[in-house]
Amino acid sequence: MGGKLYGVGVGPGDPELLTLKARRVLDAVPVLAVPVSQRGEESLALGVVRGFVRRDQEVLSLFMPMSRDRTYLVKCWEAAARELLGKLRQGRDVAFLTLGDASLYSTYSYLMEIIQRLDPSVPIETVPGITSFSAAAARLNLPLAKGDEALAVIPALEDPEILEELIPLFPNLVLMKVARRYDEIVRILARAGVAKTSVLATRCGHQGESFSWDLEAGIGQRHDYLSLIIVKGRGQQI
Amino acid sequence: MGGKLYGVGVGPGDPELLTLKARRVLDAVPVLAVPVSQRGEESLALGVVRGFVRRDQEVLSLFMPMSRDRTYLVKCWEAAARELLGKLRQGRDVAFLTLGDASLYSTYSYLMEIIQRLDPSVPIETVPGITSFSAAAARLNLPLAKGDEALAVIPALEDPEILEELIPLFPNLVLMKVARRYDEIVRILARAGVAKTSVLATRCGHQGESFSWDLEAGIGQRHDYLSLIIVKGRGQQI
Repeated sequence: MGGKLYGVGVGPGDPELLTLKARRVLDAVPVLAVPVSQRGEESLALGVVRGFVRRDQEVLSLFMPMSRDRTYLVKCWEAAARELLGKLRQGRDVAFLTLGDASLYSTYSYLMEIIQRLDPSVPIETVPGITSFSAAAARLNLPLAKGDEALAVIPALEDPEILEELIPLFPNLVLMKVARRYDEIVRILARAGVAKTSVLATRCGHQGESFSWDLEAGIGQRHDYLSLIIVKGRGQQI
Repeated sequence: MGGKLYGVGVGPGDPELLTLKARRVLDAVPVLAVPVSQRGEESLALGVVRGFVRRDQEVLSLFMPMSRDRTYLVKCWEAAARELLGKLRQGRDVAFLTLGDASLYSTYSYLMEIIQRLDPSVPIETVPGITSFSAAAARLNLPLAKGDEALAVIPALEDPEILEELIPLFPNLVLMKVARRYDEIVRILARAGVAKTSVLATRCGHQGESFSWDLEAGIGQRHDYLSLIIVKGRGQQI
């Protein structure tokens, strides 16, 4: 009998934002697999659960780099999937840990698909997690969306111009990983008249967490990779 | 000294999807406040945590009806807020329980705003929760969104025609509370060629949970209030 693969969302950073189910699965498995984007680096997801890991549990670091080179990425994901499969075929259950929610912008999605293709008999269970934007909204006592309002979640905006189309449609937008395009994004929010009703959340749930309602003050500065903006716009009611 | 108000997202239904923090807050407070949409009804949110509630904890049912009459709603929310304030002014901490995430489509958002207006000195802490759509995606081992793909979340679509505009924009859509407009919505998804790559999740995490990839088979039928559709469309990469 092979082992079971769990994809476990560990939430945004605060260990208390793990679910009871994530905690139970973490306790039960002999192997914790974690993505590292640079070799030798400490995994952010592992950092969240550090206090729960026991000495008898194996930590398997999987090299899953950040890159725009799709061929290279797929090669790395396949290598990681084969490492995982090796453990599963020894009959050991593995929990793959991922920041936030396991179904949202996680390399777990790619890993899972490759494993399903390589060996459809592997049992897989996904454990959802708290997203960074839900955690940020909670820290600010800010509704993400109310009543019949729609919400758009946009990761790593390649072309900030698209915001000009989306702001009139959506009264609530979450822009994730805004660091690389920060200045452009904020200028567009300002032109659309929503910069002052938007908030920047940086490293929410991690050390050095901060929030700013003065987005324009951040223009020209460097921003952390874990930065997101919650936009309270004036979109129509969809 | 007045009490503290906690807004606690209890997740979609499965008690194991509470966070460790929600569990700790639930244990610590003397008063649990729950919304009921009909007088005398058992609250769905209370049902989720039923196994954790102690005899020495007071359960305060707040009448928060579903209605399209805004004036009536606001009157009910204000009455509920005053009931809560009464407890807080006795120096008792109160946890207001809400299904899913406390910041997303929760009456907690309205309550919180009214309380902040009536008495800005009340300390408030929001505890995020797992959303129904993250839980549904997890149950299906389905990514909600991958890589740089955007996600749109649309509650209680009043005018399903708007989907014709959104499907080309968003490769991933979550349509919540689809019961009332089910037939229209599915016909639009079918015309857009995405009905067969969409899935209906009903009562996810509750008793009688079910999933269907054959949306068109559900046309002409009655659907549960807790029904959502995850659409895997062919939107451009935003």
